[in-house]
Amino acid sequence: MRRDSSGLQVLSREECLRLLCTTPIGRIVFTDQALPAVQPVTFRLDGQSIVIRTSIGSRLAAATRRSVVAFEADEYDPERRTGWSVTAVGHSRAATDPAEIDRLAGLPLTAWAPNGLGHYIVVEAEQVSGRRITG
Amino acid sequence: MRRDSSGLQVLSREECLRLLCTTPIGRIVFTDQALPAVQPVTFRLDGQSIVIRTSIGSRLAAATRRSVVAFEADEYDPERRTGWSVTAVGHSRAATDPAEIDRLAGLPLTAWAPNGLGHYIVVEAEQVSGRRITG
Repeated sequence: MRRDSSGLQVLSREECLRLLCTTPIGRIVFTDQALPAVQPVTFRLDGQSIVIRTSIGSRLAAATRRSVVAFEADEYDPERRTGWSVTAVGHSRAATDPAEIDRLAGLPLTAWAPNGLGHYIVVEAEQVSGRRITG
Repeated sequence: MRRDSSGLQVLSREECLRLLCTTPIGRIVFTDQALPAVQPVTFRLDGQSIVIRTSIGSRLAAATRRSVVAFEADEYDPERRTGWSVTAVGHSRAATDPAEIDRLAGLPLTAWAPNGLGHYIVVEAEQVSGRRITG
């Protein structure tokens, strides 16, 4: 088992992708008007891609059109001080092809926000890294 | 009660700062070698500042020295689809003054990682925003 300089367990790409299938919420990290920005999103892993639903007019939709973003998901137990975190970095794009949108609409990806989430952002998980803290 | 374009409840600065006192874990968002980066951290709100412990040689310590970063904390209930998220954006700096380091060391800020966390990063919460999703 490999550990990083902080003593955290380093996770393999396979383990990272497996963990991304276990939680419905992640955070997308992008640049908005030259400032770092972060927003929680519901997501679904689709092969090696992270699929996010948002509304077409959102700040997120505008900022992630053809850019490089980071995506993070984690789970922690504050009592035991255990948990994991996975980060993916890669190119993001809007799904515009009707056939792809149809397919993405069939994913079990639930939107929590009440309004207008018919827009899909696809983030390619090009660099994936993860850590586990074992208490 | 104000709502944003997604239908989420918009939180006041006071409510955001109050919520930041209720969770031990947040995520710091920064730029690392020109790419977006994000890392979970334990933190403590200290007045209008977010205080983070890390190790002096870490990627995080290097990347957050005199830069503008974002910080995010949230809490969600996947069953009820409720929760909140708070984001702060502001200048970050390393604490270098011995008197300040002494004071920060007295905060009830627990490090979860096993190794070398004697370095403090202070993020000024200059812009604070938050949303609540009520299901």
